[in-house]
Amino acid sequence: MSQDPLVVFTPSGKRGRFAKGTPVLTAARQLGVDLDSVCGGRGICSKCQITPSYGEFSKHGVTVADDALSEWNAVEQRYDDKRGLKPGRRLGCQAQVMGDVVIDVPPESQVHRQVVRKAASARVIDMDPATRLYFVEVEEPDMHEPTGDLERLERALKREWDIPEIRAESSLLSKLQPTLRKGKFQVTVALHKSHTDDVARVIDIWPGLHEAGLYGLAIDLGSTTVAAHLTDLDTGEVKASSGIMNPQIRFGEDLMSRVSYSMMNPGGDQEMTCAVRDAINTLAEEIAKEAGIEPHLIVETVFVCNPVMHHLLLGIDPVELGQAPFALATSDSVAMPARELDLHAINPRARTYILPCIAGHVGADAAAVALSEEPGKSEDLVLVVDVGTNAEILLGDTSRVLACSSPTGPAFEGAQISSGQRAAPGAIEAIQIDPDSKEPRFRVIGCEKWSDEEGFDEETAATGITGICGSGIIEAVAELRMAGLMDESGLIGSAEATGTARSVPEVRTHAYLIHDATADGGPRITVTQGDIRAIQLAKSALYAGARLLMDERGVDKVDRVVLAGAFGAHISPKHAMVLGMIPDVPLEKVTSAGNAAGTGARIALCNVAARQEIERVVREITKVETAIEPKFQDHFVAANAIPHKTDPFPELSKIVPLPNVSFNTGGDGGGGEDGGRRRRRRRA
Amino acid sequence: MSQDPLVVFTPSGKRGRFAKGTPVLTAARQLGVDLDSVCGGRGICSKCQITPSYGEFSKHGVTVADDALSEWNAVEQRYDDKRGLKPGRRLGCQAQVMGDVVIDVPPESQVHRQVVRKAASARVIDMDPATRLYFVEVEEPDMHEPTGDLERLERALKREWDIPEIRAESSLLSKLQPTLRKGKFQVTVALHKSHTDDVARVIDIWPGLHEAGLYGLAIDLGSTTVAAHLTDLDTGEVKASSGIMNPQIRFGEDLMSRVSYSMMNPGGDQEMTCAVRDAINTLAEEIAKEAGIEPHLIVETVFVCNPVMHHLLLGIDPVELGQAPFALATSDSVAMPARELDLHAINPRARTYILPCIAGHVGADAAAVALSEEPGKSEDLVLVVDVGTNAEILLGDTSRVLACSSPTGPAFEGAQISSGQRAAPGAIEAIQIDPDSKEPRFRVIGCEKWSDEEGFDEETAATGITGICGSGIIEAVAELRMAGLMDESGLIGSAEATGTARSVPEVRTHAYLIHDATADGGPRITVTQGDIRAIQLAKSALYAGARLLMDERGVDKVDRVVLAGAFGAHISPKHAMVLGMIPDVPLEKVTSAGNAAGTGARIALCNVAARQEIERVVREITKVETAIEPKFQDHFVAANAIPHKTDPFPELSKIVPLPNVSFNTGGDGGGGEDGGRRRRRRRA
Repeated sequence: MSQDPLVVFTPSGKRGRFAKGTPVLTAARQLGVDLDSVCGGRGICSKCQITPSYGEFSKHGVTVADDALSEWNAVEQRYDDKRGLKPGRRLGCQAQVMGDVVIDVPPESQVHRQVVRKAASARVIDMDPATRLYFVEVEEPDMHEPTGDLERLERALKREWDIPEIRAESSLLSKLQPTLRKGKFQVTVALHKSHTDDVARVIDIWPGLHEAGLYGLAIDLGSTTVAAHLTDLDTGEVKASSGIMNPQIRFGEDLMSRVSYSMMNPGGDQEMTCAVRDAINTLAEEIAKEAGIEPHLIVETVFVCNPVMHHLLLGIDPVELGQAPFALATSDSVAMPARELDLHAINPRARTYILPCIAGHVGADAAAVALSEEPGKSEDLVLVVDVGTNAEILLGDTSRVLACSSPTGPAFEGAQISSGQRAAPGAIEAIQIDPDSKEPRFRVIGCEKWSDEEGFDEETAATGITGICGSGIIEAVAELRMAGLMDESGLIGSAEATGTARSVPEVRTHAYLIHDATADGGPRITVTQGDIRAIQLAKSALYAGARLLMDERGVDKVDRVVLAGAFGAHISPKHAMVLGMIPDVPLEKVTSAGNAAGTGARIALCNVAARQEIERVVREITKVETAIEPKFQDHFVAANAIPHKTDPFPELSKIVPLPNVSFNTGGDGGGGEDGGRRRRRRRA
Repeated sequence: MSQDPLVVFTPSGKRGRFAKGTPVLTAARQLGVDLDSVCGGRGICSKCQITPSYGEFSKHGVTVADDALSEWNAVEQRYDDKRGLKPGRRLGCQAQVMGDVVIDVPPESQVHRQVVRKAASARVIDMDPATRLYFVEVEEPDMHEPTGDLERLERALKREWDIPEIRAESSLLSKLQPTLRKGKFQVTVALHKSHTDDVARVIDIWPGLHEAGLYGLAIDLGSTTVAAHLTDLDTGEVKASSGIMNPQIRFGEDLMSRVSYSMMNPGGDQEMTCAVRDAINTLAEEIAKEAGIEPHLIVETVFVCNPVMHHLLLGIDPVELGQAPFALATSDSVAMPARELDLHAINPRARTYILPCIAGHVGADAAAVALSEEPGKSEDLVLVVDVGTNAEILLGDTSRVLACSSPTGPAFEGAQISSGQRAAPGAIEAIQIDPDSKEPRFRVIGCEKWSDEEGFDEETAATGITGICGSGIIEAVAELRMAGLMDESGLIGSAEATGTARSVPEVRTHAYLIHDATADGGPRITVTQGDIRAIQLAKSALYAGARLLMDERGVDKVDRVVLAGAFGAHISPKHAMVLGMIPDVPLEKVTSAGNAAGTGARIALCNVAARQEIERVVREITKVETAIEPKFQDHFVAANAIPHKTDPFPELSKIVPLPNVSFNTGGDGGGGEDGGRRRRRRRA
């Protein structure tokens, strides 16, 4: 008697023998092969497409005959006619094993398909969202065996999908009966399975097979901007990204002024909570419209944010975060109905997940950076800096990860700078000062050319030259130092001392004139002594935070530096090191992670196990509080100087290509909504 | 070396040896003795009061010396000065074991204290509510070891109360920080622990020791009236009972007309849902005011109701319940935040529990009757009939329980009766017709005297004689039969045939004139042929339902009958049997359970294990659907006659005392809000 046919699945290599007539989907399930199916093998969802291979496979020890699978059947033909199947493809639920066969599961048929992030590290996100679709056939009611429709739905989910227990809230109950009847007792349900309990929550239900997909919003809720990525929960694809200003800005530009506003104004925290929730609703509506999907198909939201935004989002007065001991109301991750946050623009039963906070000053955004950049998995010692109004700093390797935040203030974002502005068309974003002539050349956002190149004036005519943004002011200060116009203490010399008329008097000090359009009624753009002091304070704070972690770790250098934050993507590493923003490392060891916090949010949105992972990681992180550490003050004072007086990397002065970044849209920390659309280019 | 002292607790009899100096509370906990404590042994809550006994206890083999416990201490003195301790009482957390001792735990110090129900059966409710208070001391925040306040609260609850995991929603988070600080990190939390999951939900939090108690509402949501019992969740005491009319009456008097309203009017179900939820909010506010408690101290609600009310409460269109196969949207119990039912008058985080439904026509109210009357624990075969607009019928004993509902219509409640009215002052509730003179005498609600007694006219002058209520019409029809005025088919004879002028012509039939005040501008109260037909239909439906269950069970008689429902409390068992409403049993085997559904609701409110119990019982009940059972129709037709033509219990015609009933307030089925205040008296 001959053996049952051997089935070998690729790429997994899983194999087993099955009786003739076994559907390929059944064989895959029994072997634990990752083959998707929403309709449970009814030939209607097409998720289980497979590609049989024919011929000899010495590697697998199998020869596959032409009749190794049952013949192409009517269900497959109907699907092919209606939607089209790629050549060579079969439906796994229809094709039956008839002889030894090698079956390839293409990536799009895998449940846990991987989505390659377009990041420098080229890591991938395994798709494993908390909310998934399940198609089921529910028994019809029988008055002799009376059971509720919900109970029969639960029974069907248990029978067909091995879901042990479901919960449905009353708003779902109210649509259950008409939906079941409209679908002739065939329905698709969206079930949310949390990593913290065993219950599957029914998020929504549709008659028949629901084919319009499910979506999630990964939201990076910054003090300045709110950025959202609308993500397909099946494919992981980002369907649209959008950002808006955080309307709380009217209550205070930075976090501490918002905390003060709450302290000074009874109900002030609630005003700010309402404002940001309204903004998120608006953003959700806009982004759904942009992507052309129904807002109720958004069934999950994941938030990353700093602790003050975290509390204001949750409706918690942030007053305790404004004073020692900076106690968080809750530090663990938060999972709840999105409705509790008044997010009425999306599915009424959508769920929200907020990553855990690390400490009173180190929020869920820093946790998201840790999730994205994984310092705890790094073999070499990596310093991850998320540059924004506050800098979140992580230092670690496989042995241990430390975290702190540092109050850099808004200077890096171009705020509190005399000619400063947000990164927007017309803003100077890059600058060079010739060491000999002391003359500047610069580029502005919205124009590819340098200011001394032909066509620059024409191309900038529309936007004008309006000010200087965060990356521009960092470069300007560093260039002033390298051009010998400024000493180590940050003092700009007089025209007599520097030999250039661009050193102009400014009250009792001097400023450097970059651009003067006053004759045409335009702005006069200078770098003042005050601007330099603001940048010195900011960079000292950042550097002191990094040093403090290095002290805690007992090291005086790091192996590599990752600059995160939308703003981080635009900082020139060379200028950052000239300024002394970050510890010196070889230039090629400085990389940009783009909007790592946003990436972390998207990972948590697409992979429920990542939520468990970051919760574990955050518990194990060593938290360092800068606000009360005397050594922080020492480092801060010591870091005030600007040490490098020459270009430390002359060989790299031609082109410094920045790595691709996956998330460069909006996000807190300077880029603003423009940040995502421009790609920084260095000296041509 | 002498042994450690022996401690014997009464009434449990639990005993053990403990080192000298062990607090009595600690000894009790180690032995699993049921000794309450909210403050965790800090001497502030006084819940752990115990009474030591001194002298010789041969039963226990112990002689208790005067110094068997440590001396009365300052904490006890302070408590005694402030609040007073009963003589002989000690605080279990303060008194330490110093020698062999016998310690009595008085009932009020037991966690699972029993509340005696004032019911005929004198069963007790074990107090074990889902929501309880826990006093804890929370660690203060430490910025060197940053954790959230919630996480430290959770840690304290685990340490002090062995609570493994808590959940808090955002509205609780927003009050967590100020409450902890106001209480100097000593707080009382109300935790809700469901029987279906392991999570303890934080319902509320108060600074310091919360002494104002916790309350729950047991709500019997009837088609006609909504009755609520405000219950102390610590003692089980009913602080107030109140009832209001169900405002859905304006959409339809009976259930089927409400289902029709929903079918005919788009959004009609939502109108009815809003109406009933509004009414419940009003009721909750009123009852809290009546009891003098803050409405936010109401942290639990338990509902019992028929399936249509169940669906309308949950916001589910009841349309499926109006047509075969009468599919419920959900049959299992429902547990959810009360907020989902828009119950905003009570604690915003209060929980709701709705008992399971048995079948499409047999609701959570019938389940509550099963919980209260426990037919499944009866050694003899008991028929439980909850008489209302629909009759819920249970038949069972320890071997098996069957259930059905029967569409009796509203005649038993005085509706659709020519002179019918709700049970309210002025309504005729009892009647006798002299077999010889054929003259009636009657009593009206609000007056203790019979109509032929002296002083009757004076005492009824205020209310008048306004109509005839449910119990009155049942007696009237039965009396007509026994007085020979009506034949077995229900036909009233003419004046010639009966020999009394009270047989008056009425269209083409005859009516019996009970009372005529038309001369004074008052009503003319008669029993018409139409009234008799309505009662016949109702009683036939009830009887046929009971017979159908008896058929299913294979019996032709039952051992006893329990009449439940507020209305059931007022039906004369003799007249019910004369009419053929219920199967014949000896009169002493007919008891009233009062508002058994309301009692069931209160049991489920006070004892979380009872929820699990009734869920199990309901799953095991045999459901019988009357609507499609041909035998039901046969029984119905056969039951139309009124068989008894003489008083079947002449020896009992003097006094038929009704048993005490524990819940006689409001409830569905006729009593109205008046039901609870009057006590039925039979022939003097």
